[in-house]
Amino acid sequence: MSRDSSDRPDFQADETTLDSSLNRGPVNRRVPEGDNRPRLICDDCGFIHYDNPKIVVGAICLHEDRILLCRRAIPPRIGYWTLPAGYLELNESTEAGAVREAFEEATARIEIERLLAVYNIPRISQVQLIYRARLLSPEVAAGEESQEVALFRWEDIPRQEIAFPSVHWALDHHRETQAMSDFPPFGNPAGETGHY
Amino acid sequence: MSRDSSDRPDFQADETTLDSSLNRGPVNRRVPEGDNRPRLICDDCGFIHYDNPKIVVGAICLHEDRILLCRRAIPPRIGYWTLPAGYLELNESTEAGAVREAFEEATARIEIERLLAVYNIPRISQVQLIYRARLLSPEVAAGEESQEVALFRWEDIPRQEIAFPSVHWALDHHRETQAMSDFPPFGNPAGETGHY
Repeated sequence: MSRDSSDRPDFQADETTLDSSLNRGPVNRRVPEGDNRPRLICDDCGFIHYDNPKIVVGAICLHEDRILLCRRAIPPRIGYWTLPAGYLELNESTEAGAVREAFEEATARIEIERLLAVYNIPRISQVQLIYRARLLSPEVAAGEESQEVALFRWEDIPRQEIAFPSVHWALDHHRETQAMSDFPPFGNPAGETGHY
Repeated sequence: MSRDSSDRPDFQADETTLDSSLNRGPVNRRVPEGDNRPRLICDDCGFIHYDNPKIVVGAICLHEDRILLCRRAIPPRIGYWTLPAGYLELNESTEAGAVREAFEEATARIEIERLLAVYNIPRISQVQLIYRARLLSPEVAAGEESQEVALFRWEDIPRQEIAFPSVHWALDHHRETQAMSDFPPFGNPAGETGHY
């Protein structure tokens, strides 16, 4: 809770983490004292490598009744459509990350309106925070990771060419709540455990 | 979005990430091709080390009108009270993580009710997902990371001995919504940027 990373026994701050990859000591996987899972540990300096789940931030970006989608220029699922979304960076808030991704992938300037959903994909250790956002201008263009970008009316969304299941989830959850200003965020749809 | 970790250019899956720490090649910090931030890169194998923000999961755990708090047995803030909370593990959903932490820190069996808040602490690259949960039994006991655990009525909460700002935030946000079953999750309180 608002704590230093040092509150985990033996856990080191970021710069130390980075420096540790420069270590040349033997590294073995074992359960650290006071822990209950095996971790990679440097037998030389005692550094413990904690591997953590990753946070993906993204947004349903709206201009009037149209939704911004990006056609992927990078693997996986090159050529398929997705929401502007990506990994949260260090020292970045989740809202700021979603704003950044919209700009990087579609040169889109957006204003976050609210949290639409928190999806869990434990199979790949991902937590996705998807926001509803307003495009400040319909002027969008493909960023480096997009082949093209476009604004779609609901009935024109290429549902057969969507990159990932959670894009479908977010589109449907947005559709369900588009007229609402106040609602709890969605989780995974029923039956979708994210363990697939 | 529900994607493999391989969707980041050159990003490798988890086992490869771990193996890479066994590398002995020279590691330098530079901006990878197609990226816009410096990362640690192995000049030998091309492995890119992405350091990511961490997810903390926790819960306001309720038995009737009492709230479970844990007195910390580990740094930082030893001896101060906190909510059961901790880092999300790999291949774990956020709800499952909050349930696990309650058990590890207070042998508490809980049932998650809803998402209370998403707090951003960018200074330490943390995103905290705090749930409201029901204790299935008032039988709780200190886990390895707690000196003691206890159930507090609102007026008895030791507000002068709370470990972290976001514990105060969560307590206040819970108080505000305790009679409600349906509400959007809170973010940081106004003015609290998490950059302190």
